[in-house]
Amino acid sequence: MDTPAENGPSASDRGAGPDIHPQETAISEIGEFGLIAHLRDTLGESDDDSILEGIADDAAVYRVSDDTVHVVTTDALIEGVHFDRTFMPMEHLGFKAMSANVSDVAAMNARPRYATVVVGVPKNASVEAMGTLYQGIKQACDAYGITVIGGDTTGAHSLSVTVTVIGEAAEDEIVYRRGSKPGDKICVTGDLGASYAGLKVLLLQREQLQQQGEDFQPHLDKFSYVIRRHLAPPAQLQAVRNWKEAGFRPSSLIDVSDGLASEVHHLCEASGTRAQLYEPSIPISPHTRNAATEFGEEVTVYALFGGEDYELVFTASEEQLQDLDPQSFNVIGEMEAPEEDLPRVQLKQADGDNVRVRPGGFDHFGDDQPQG
Amino acid sequence: MDTPAENGPSASDRGAGPDIHPQETAISEIGEFGLIAHLRDTLGESDDDSILEGIADDAAVYRVSDDTVHVVTTDALIEGVHFDRTFMPMEHLGFKAMSANVSDVAAMNARPRYATVVVGVPKNASVEAMGTLYQGIKQACDAYGITVIGGDTTGAHSLSVTVTVIGEAAEDEIVYRRGSKPGDKICVTGDLGASYAGLKVLLLQREQLQQQGEDFQPHLDKFSYVIRRHLAPPAQLQAVRNWKEAGFRPSSLIDVSDGLASEVHHLCEASGTRAQLYEPSIPISPHTRNAATEFGEEVTVYALFGGEDYELVFTASEEQLQDLDPQSFNVIGEMEAPEEDLPRVQLKQADGDNVRVRPGGFDHFGDDQPQG
Repeated sequence: MDTPAENGPSASDRGAGPDIHPQETAISEIGEFGLIAHLRDTLGESDDDSILEGIADDAAVYRVSDDTVHVVTTDALIEGVHFDRTFMPMEHLGFKAMSANVSDVAAMNARPRYATVVVGVPKNASVEAMGTLYQGIKQACDAYGITVIGGDTTGAHSLSVTVTVIGEAAEDEIVYRRGSKPGDKICVTGDLGASYAGLKVLLLQREQLQQQGEDFQPHLDKFSYVIRRHLAPPAQLQAVRNWKEAGFRPSSLIDVSDGLASEVHHLCEASGTRAQLYEPSIPISPHTRNAATEFGEEVTVYALFGGEDYELVFTASEEQLQDLDPQSFNVIGEMEAPEEDLPRVQLKQADGDNVRVRPGGFDHFGDDQPQG
Repeated sequence: MDTPAENGPSASDRGAGPDIHPQETAISEIGEFGLIAHLRDTLGESDDDSILEGIADDAAVYRVSDDTVHVVTTDALIEGVHFDRTFMPMEHLGFKAMSANVSDVAAMNARPRYATVVVGVPKNASVEAMGTLYQGIKQACDAYGITVIGGDTTGAHSLSVTVTVIGEAAEDEIVYRRGSKPGDKICVTGDLGASYAGLKVLLLQREQLQQQGEDFQPHLDKFSYVIRRHLAPPAQLQAVRNWKEAGFRPSSLIDVSDGLASEVHHLCEASGTRAQLYEPSIPISPHTRNAATEFGEEVTVYALFGGEDYELVFTASEEQLQDLDPQSFNVIGEMEAPEEDLPRVQLKQADGDNVRVRPGGFDHFGDDQPQG
């Protein structure tokens, strides 16, 4: 569940329905993961044995013939929660909505084929704006080899784009979160933290615009890399294509949507491993470093907790990695056997300190407490 | 595109984005179908020959193996546009969101298999309310034989439920809108207009509640059939199962989501036929007649233009219809060859008048103008 992001007005209580009854429970009381667990329990188990993976991974997996499986994933981008229309160009919104879903398909080591698109259209959205949104969707279709085969266009209070992508793979190509083993290297494509840096720049520019009005001169050129990584992030489908060509299959795989720390926790929890990460090895663009310096912030925080990078985090043995172009990834750590007294994920910093990393933050003081 | 329905507050301009630029076009200027055509043009044609049907039918169809196709359809229900939380029980909302999509799968003569569910959760929705919503989804899963395999739960300004359903069929089982021939009978399952009658009753009760406050005593018992047909309509999947068992395949097929008049137009346009309907043959429940009488309105209007009945309209030759249980459908008209001087759809009334029916209304005065 996405909570209102920093990139827009918070999701205020605009629902037309009644207030929460005093005897009922606000969702904030049980939190995102509590709600999802509750809803999953309500749905119960399925006895459909064509389903190889349900709600637990980046995408669901089901068998469509003896040797072929399909994967399906769905994601919504909602105005005021996931984006701010004042600085999100419509074309980029369409592209990003597709990328977020294609990234989940790539995170299963599958190829996207078909998409459906549901657009909630508020009255203040023009025909031209909707056309530009669909140009971004079309660009993504061309880039990723997808066809939009269905959808729904409906009136709505705020702009929303909900995309479902169906992908394809041979059954033995699919890679889950759960396959990593102690000794496997933890690797990542591309660089991390740029999307969050771009968001910070855009938020600052918006603030300055509001303060200075017409006198405001935006300074976006020197931040164009990080802004682009925030507004129109590409999914790393090319990595999946290259792996197939090289005969390489990771032992576990996930995409970076919530942030590296959260994703590595997912891999460890699904695989029953713990992770040792090395801070100096985390790939960070000089552009991202410059932005963090400008804001007087630690760039590692951007990389670990920023999210929306849509890079791929994968594990493989050192031997397997020989099959890959060494330019195409960075080794950022290693999987290890779980130990009762050690936290799930640790980060060895440049100064030699080995700190515990929680899914949503550092813990410089709680290194002695094992993490669930 | 659904415009704000009568069952809730109209979709006001609550978007956080800018107003429409004076040189841009409001969507109301080109209308629902204009917008959809524009967006479809933007996406262009696909050269993926696994796709048998794209955006033009009730669901898209794509080949997954030599003899099997999948269908996919998606539909959003948005608070204040499609439903009013003050009189839509959460359980029914979940069930209805599933039914609307299963009905589209049935309208391809296919069997639903998998679903994904995206829920936009406003701050005033409780854990209990969300649990009850999912109980309705679960009931639908059990009734229709579907498994929810994925989804997204996100913060939102208003409650929304977006469901995608994937179904399955042999390639030669699929029935499109385009297959009907002159001479085919036009048939419908169940009865029509009840959902709209139920909506009318609920709106009246809400108005009375607002006027009379705590003194108000709701009178819902005598309208329970039509209310239930509005709040928790079943999809006619059993008809599809019965047809398969009887070795019956309609020549064309569509479900009643927008209203009989609109659906028959779709069949005629896709098939290149025109339709002659017989008013006295349209199946209408006595409960629906009673409600219309109470409101002093023509019940045929409910049946033709009400929508959300989720019955199936299908065509077949008289000979083929011999294979079916005559209790399971009603013949309401006949397909004929198009004639330049005759409207696309006509309705022979009980008094003998043969009036032109437009997708969204009667035309008692324009019978001499052919309809596009």
